[in-house]
Amino acid sequence: MEETAKQPNHGAIVVFKPSGQVVEVQIGTLLSDAAVEAGLSLNLPCGGQGRCGRCRVKVEHGDVSHRSAARLTTAERQEGWALGCQAVIKGDAVIFVPEQEQVEIEFVTKTVGAERIALAADFKGEVDPSVRRAYVAITPPSLDDQTTDWDRLLRALSLEHGIREVGANLATLRDLARDLREAEWSVTAVLDMGDPERDTCARPRLIDLLPGDQTGRCYGVAIDIGTTSNVVYLVDLVRGKVIDRASAYSGQIQAGEDVISRIVFAQKRDGLNRLQKMVLKTLNGLLEELTSRNQIPASQISKAVVAGNTTMIQLFLALDPKTIREMPFIPTIGQPMAVTAEELGLAINPRATVDCLPVVGAYVGADITAGVLASGMHETDALTLFIDVGTNGEIVLGNRDWLITCACSAGPAFEGSGVRHGMRATAGAIEEVWIDARTYEPTYETIGNLPARGIAGSGMIGLLADMFITGIVDKAGKIARDLPTPRVRVGDHGGEYVVVWANQSGIGTDIVINEVDIENLLRTKGAIYAGFTVLVQSVGVELADVEQVFIAGAFGQYINIEKAIHIGLLPDMPWDRFHYLGNTSALGAFHSLVSRAMRHEVFEIAQKMTYLELSADNTFYDRFMSALFLPHTDITAFPSVMRLLKEREG
Amino acid sequence: MEETAKQPNHGAIVVFKPSGQVVEVQIGTLLSDAAVEAGLSLNLPCGGQGRCGRCRVKVEHGDVSHRSAARLTTAERQEGWALGCQAVIKGDAVIFVPEQEQVEIEFVTKTVGAERIALAADFKGEVDPSVRRAYVAITPPSLDDQTTDWDRLLRALSLEHGIREVGANLATLRDLARDLREAEWSVTAVLDMGDPERDTCARPRLIDLLPGDQTGRCYGVAIDIGTTSNVVYLVDLVRGKVIDRASAYSGQIQAGEDVISRIVFAQKRDGLNRLQKMVLKTLNGLLEELTSRNQIPASQISKAVVAGNTTMIQLFLALDPKTIREMPFIPTIGQPMAVTAEELGLAINPRATVDCLPVVGAYVGADITAGVLASGMHETDALTLFIDVGTNGEIVLGNRDWLITCACSAGPAFEGSGVRHGMRATAGAIEEVWIDARTYEPTYETIGNLPARGIAGSGMIGLLADMFITGIVDKAGKIARDLPTPRVRVGDHGGEYVVVWANQSGIGTDIVINEVDIENLLRTKGAIYAGFTVLVQSVGVELADVEQVFIAGAFGQYINIEKAIHIGLLPDMPWDRFHYLGNTSALGAFHSLVSRAMRHEVFEIAQKMTYLELSADNTFYDRFMSALFLPHTDITAFPSVMRLLKEREG
Repeated sequence: MEETAKQPNHGAIVVFKPSGQVVEVQIGTLLSDAAVEAGLSLNLPCGGQGRCGRCRVKVEHGDVSHRSAARLTTAERQEGWALGCQAVIKGDAVIFVPEQEQVEIEFVTKTVGAERIALAADFKGEVDPSVRRAYVAITPPSLDDQTTDWDRLLRALSLEHGIREVGANLATLRDLARDLREAEWSVTAVLDMGDPERDTCARPRLIDLLPGDQTGRCYGVAIDIGTTSNVVYLVDLVRGKVIDRASAYSGQIQAGEDVISRIVFAQKRDGLNRLQKMVLKTLNGLLEELTSRNQIPASQISKAVVAGNTTMIQLFLALDPKTIREMPFIPTIGQPMAVTAEELGLAINPRATVDCLPVVGAYVGADITAGVLASGMHETDALTLFIDVGTNGEIVLGNRDWLITCACSAGPAFEGSGVRHGMRATAGAIEEVWIDARTYEPTYETIGNLPARGIAGSGMIGLLADMFITGIVDKAGKIARDLPTPRVRVGDHGGEYVVVWANQSGIGTDIVINEVDIENLLRTKGAIYAGFTVLVQSVGVELADVEQVFIAGAFGQYINIEKAIHIGLLPDMPWDRFHYLGNTSALGAFHSLVSRAMRHEVFEIAQKMTYLELSADNTFYDRFMSALFLPHTDITAFPSVMRLLKEREG
Repeated sequence: MEETAKQPNHGAIVVFKPSGQVVEVQIGTLLSDAAVEAGLSLNLPCGGQGRCGRCRVKVEHGDVSHRSAARLTTAERQEGWALGCQAVIKGDAVIFVPEQEQVEIEFVTKTVGAERIALAADFKGEVDPSVRRAYVAITPPSLDDQTTDWDRLLRALSLEHGIREVGANLATLRDLARDLREAEWSVTAVLDMGDPERDTCARPRLIDLLPGDQTGRCYGVAIDIGTTSNVVYLVDLVRGKVIDRASAYSGQIQAGEDVISRIVFAQKRDGLNRLQKMVLKTLNGLLEELTSRNQIPASQISKAVVAGNTTMIQLFLALDPKTIREMPFIPTIGQPMAVTAEELGLAINPRATVDCLPVVGAYVGADITAGVLASGMHETDALTLFIDVGTNGEIVLGNRDWLITCACSAGPAFEGSGVRHGMRATAGAIEEVWIDARTYEPTYETIGNLPARGIAGSGMIGLLADMFITGIVDKAGKIARDLPTPRVRVGDHGGEYVVVWANQSGIGTDIVINEVDIENLLRTKGAIYAGFTVLVQSVGVELADVEQVFIAGAFGQYINIEKAIHIGLLPDMPWDRFHYLGNTSALGAFHSLVSRAMRHEVFEIAQKMTYLELSADNTFYDRFMSALFLPHTDITAFPSVMRLLKEREG
């Protein structure tokens, strides 16, 4: 654009694309302020500190000066990209503002691996569930053909579909005579075929007999029984897609927040039975929600695949988990046998198979084998680290050749437990926090953009990182006493920082984080980091050799890798090596449900995984102690954090 | 012995061997009277009419004259045998009296096939049940070996016994952790191995885990669920022997005496469930009796094999038998799947397999397939007829090459139903009757030699035959009105014959047989005989071509073949072609329990048997009508009876 005659007031015309808004501003105006004047809003997650890079815009014409471009690569700057909160108008300009929602999505997916999140609702392999439906029009009996009802059905399945050697439970047989006649001999058999490709003795099992031709639809559920929350995916087995999902807090929480307390509860009189009933109540409630919302009768759900940690699986099956807790920590079974829904009381078709995925040890369960499956780390050559940031802190290291795992008993701090204002990643949870280094004022975002009700795991990571970077806490996690902000004060549990004042929060009180909370967070992140280091050293490699890190867990949309590195939860590596995969337990269960090949893979994964008992490893304690600092007693292990701290000092 | 000087009183010295008793009697004394004087007792079942041949003695020295020797062959007479009740002392003599009990046994076995009765308590083949026990001393877990409990057990079974791919029900798994530890890792696994020799996909299933080494004993039960009575054999599976047996009336009788009325009852609200509970109550009562009497805990009974007619099997499994009764008469299943005791509520080890033998059709059930197995007719070249003289009157014709069967709906007359004083073959039941042709006085024997309480099936056959032979009834079964005996009179149901006067009976009233009873007996025997003829004609042979006839049924000790021919129940053939086999249903179940090869044979028998639907065969009715006479409208089909009647006239 040619320069027009300058006004004596040193103004500049700024045109914003694609909206076409035009504004005249003073030279020296911040680009983000100019956008506001033009009626546009730029996302400013970090509050305009130039730290998050999400206010980026492209200068198509004209010039801006850059206060900071920390988040931009050289190439990007050469292309004309600038940070809206750090760029200053020097003259007339044309500025392209990317679609803000798209920026958010890209930011999220850049850290999380787009293809993985997409998989949560989709399965790209061959859809091949073990359940199938077969329609037969059966010749009715007569005095000349007095074949029994069962043999008659089998004959039709064999002749019309080549399906042979079908078995059934006695309960199924009890409905047969009536079902055949009511349907006037025109029926759809719902069968669980097993996996004959990989098990020569797999025989089809009749689950149900429906009137007429009902081969067009077939449903299953993938279930994740977490210690804290349970998730059910309703799956269309014909198309191999997740139709809907529902989740709720586990009904077992009343019997204990963590695995150990539930194992103790199970020892009470009728404790085991009651625990099983609690989880069934939760799951059946979720099934009710899904079936009524989608208008699908529960009897049409013909299979369930279940993942969960070892104790959850045992309680679900009413197998006393006592020996899981006692030395030397032994589960009852590694590959639970398939059972029927009615044996357990699960409210799907009573004869449907309920298949619990395999567990590896007392503290590495089916949620982890499912997670490894979903992550694909068992199929890659790249040295991969997989971490499920939950209470047990299970970690898997390996690739297609070998897999080693351990559980670092991290504790439930990131899930909200042990942190005063911690909560699950649901509506109103703070999931992102930035603190201004000068004012100590926070900028935060909540799930659903609702008034804050508490802090989710990802929010805690961001909060602790920024408190550390800004100096509100020291490397030992102690809150500085004399900072010029009312947000830092002394409360009932020592020093605390107010994230949200009462009048802005959605719960009527201040939302704070205190020194006890921080101590719990440090222990949790320290156990995880120690787990990483012990695991890699046990196979003679370094953390730096790890090519990709997969993170699973209930963080909600995402986890901020950068900040997780700042606090020393994750190793200091290029961020593009990290991928957040979401709920890999449910994902792996889903894959196992829609594909027999996948189901077989998870069996092989469990066979392959070797378990490292950390309590028997004498280096774990030392590593844990070293990791209780921010980011670590050995700061040289975190060069990027060293640099950041130096910059801050300077 | 030399003749001593004769006394003028014409006496003779008779020495009885082996007892050594000596007696002096008048010449002309009946030998049986001489025996009585000597203090011996000769069995005189037919009352001294010379008709039964069971008072036979051997004249070792001296002479007797024979009033009659009808039952003795020429060779026997040449050897010196004489009928005690027909031989007259002519001079000094030495008489050998066979052991009377032995005579009875021989009489019975000559008609019944000794080897078969022996089989009832014995199995001569290779003892090879599907249940086995294996003891393992397991290495306990440690931090270095955290193998799960289930895998640890499987590893031990594989290493020490070569037993692989073991499965279990979830219920079994629930006790595992506790059982292993309480037994301090030294356990006996009770396994149902299935039949891998004949089913390549048979996998062992863990039924129970016992502390220490308990391989020395192993038990099972063979069960016969009859319409009227249920029988349980307690079997030692290590030795392949029946240890004990118990029987009782079926608890289902309150819901109907016959199969059809029970099927009707099953249609009532909760009818099916109640019927199942009734039979379980009976069976569990028998099990309780056996386990307490033999001091064997019910949990040590690791398998049950069950036989019974099709309706009984379906009711036992709570499969609605409705379609059995409705045209075109279709059972739900031919080979019921194996289930566990706890699925049914049978009081043996809850995880034990309950294996119901196969049925052939709505009216030819597992009692018949078991019966064919026990009879061995499927292994012989001889053309064989097998008849189960029960309510359904099932008949099987064939040999190793082919088997054809039908059910002639005989009715329960021979089991006591429909006959005023009919009863089961238990204590006090008249099982043998002879009527003196001149006096019309009866001679009878009861089971247990107790005062008569009623007439068993075999007693009815003998009674009807003798009433016919002596002219008390005519060929139409009508009782003659003007006979010179108070035993023949008119009662509430037409003419009747008093078998036992009240003052001699064990029930305080006269025991009679009346014209209505006789009508029922004629219909029953007529249906059976008609079944025979239709069956042989359907394959183009004659009854005379049949080489052996096997009779099964609840007749107690035996059935009198001769008399059964007299009334036209059995075809007129040489008596040595007939063999009474007793309860072949229980026998076949027992064989199937102790031998997997036998179990497989009964499967093949069921496959091979073709069913002939008599109601679709238009000759059955005509044959039935012809058979309603004594012995038949065509008397020439019964030459031996013709001869007997002629003798009587003469």
